[in-house]
Amino acid sequence: MDYYRNLPAEKDNENIDRPQVSVAVIHRLPRYFRYLRELIRNGRMRISSGELAEMMGVTASQIRQDLNCFGGFGQQGYGYNVNYLYAKISELLGVGAGLQAVIIGAGDLGRALVRSSMFEKRGVDIIAMFDVDSKLIHKEVGDVTIYDMVDLEQFCKEHQVDIAVLTLPKEFVEREASRLVECGVKGLWNFTGRELSYESDTVVVENVHLGDSLMSLNYALCRKLGEEETKKKSEERETQK
Amino acid sequence: MDYYRNLPAEKDNENIDRPQVSVAVIHRLPRYFRYLRELIRNGRMRISSGELAEMMGVTASQIRQDLNCFGGFGQQGYGYNVNYLYAKISELLGVGAGLQAVIIGAGDLGRALVRSSMFEKRGVDIIAMFDVDSKLIHKEVGDVTIYDMVDLEQFCKEHQVDIAVLTLPKEFVEREASRLVECGVKGLWNFTGRELSYESDTVVVENVHLGDSLMSLNYALCRKLGEEETKKKSEERETQK
Repeated sequence: MDYYRNLPAEKDNENIDRPQVSVAVIHRLPRYFRYLRELIRNGRMRISSGELAEMMGVTASQIRQDLNCFGGFGQQGYGYNVNYLYAKISELLGVGAGLQAVIIGAGDLGRALVRSSMFEKRGVDIIAMFDVDSKLIHKEVGDVTIYDMVDLEQFCKEHQVDIAVLTLPKEFVEREASRLVECGVKGLWNFTGRELSYESDTVVVENVHLGDSLMSLNYALCRKLGEEETKKKSEERETQK
Repeated sequence: MDYYRNLPAEKDNENIDRPQVSVAVIHRLPRYFRYLRELIRNGRMRISSGELAEMMGVTASQIRQDLNCFGGFGQQGYGYNVNYLYAKISELLGVGAGLQAVIIGAGDLGRALVRSSMFEKRGVDIIAMFDVDSKLIHKEVGDVTIYDMVDLEQFCKEHQVDIAVLTLPKEFVEREASRLVECGVKGLWNFTGRELSYESDTVVVENVHLGDSLMSLNYALCRKLGEEETKKKSEERETQK
């Protein structure tokens, strides 16, 4: 197919019933997903690569290279069919795959996550929360029940649990992650700040490090403030001359 | 200095009173910061590049290349001085810079962030939260008071506000970000899911997209489940033969 002409052949993607897409494109897809979602919400039916590029702060050529393998465009000058493209990207990202998740830890972060619309928007169903605090057990957050951590194995036997969102204190994360993997959970979304690594054929781990993001901001900010300070001093010297 | 031999010269870092470090290293520093912190907590005084490499799942050569520019090692066979290295990296990342932050939005996420130890660990002081909900105003979360959004300008006149953490609904983010920038806030840590971009000479923005992280997990998980399914079917076929 002509669409693939700009894309590197991806050996380990070959056996999948999905368009052949490079790893770099895969990492950019969630961003397209967000922008297309916003366009749909605003009632847009189609968009040119140029306009989408401007919205996203990338080049039109990048957009064409990334998205042409999904089709979703008619002819030169028509642009992309927004709904079609959104549906294709959603499918590739597993939005319609019916994934089910549990949240381990019913503290502030667990509660914030369960109440956000993030999971629903991405087709992931939160079916339970777990905690060890007896004051929380059997309570509900939103419409999700908090269960006792001791019942984890039983719950996983009775329900399909694809993803565990880890918001428990980091001291316990290795132990509880092992229990979850033992229960057959294949995806760990880890917010504890302590990195988990498993052989990739056992389980998929996504470590989230909010603190690292804050540090990046701090660094850039300190650098900026330092530059401003230097500039100010140099201007003061100029004025004094 | 001999330490710099493996590092690319960084033109725009030259005027700063800090070790000369490449952008790629800067992005890896928060991870070193976390691991060194953990070592300190466990009472470790020194560590070899080999051991640190194993902990972090990278090569010892990468570690040496990244960290040698900070010094902190005595001689061959001694390894790194953990406290010294931690102090140097902290300094570079602005941990001791006395940065002050406000959180815009006192919803679940804002509350989860203010109650976490993340800011304190990184030397950022949360001095206020802001919201528009009159039921929340003047309440406290932890020891941080929630102020009325209408008082933002006044508050920023009376206090040094370096960073605003944006956890408000995304429909309002552009408007409120503009107000904050107008007030002289130079750093925006944006959790709204709607990307903000400013000219880099005005303000530093760090956009956090938790949903993108979830999508990456979903994608990897669907791929893994698909492969397992394929393998299972192929094994069933083998058995039937």
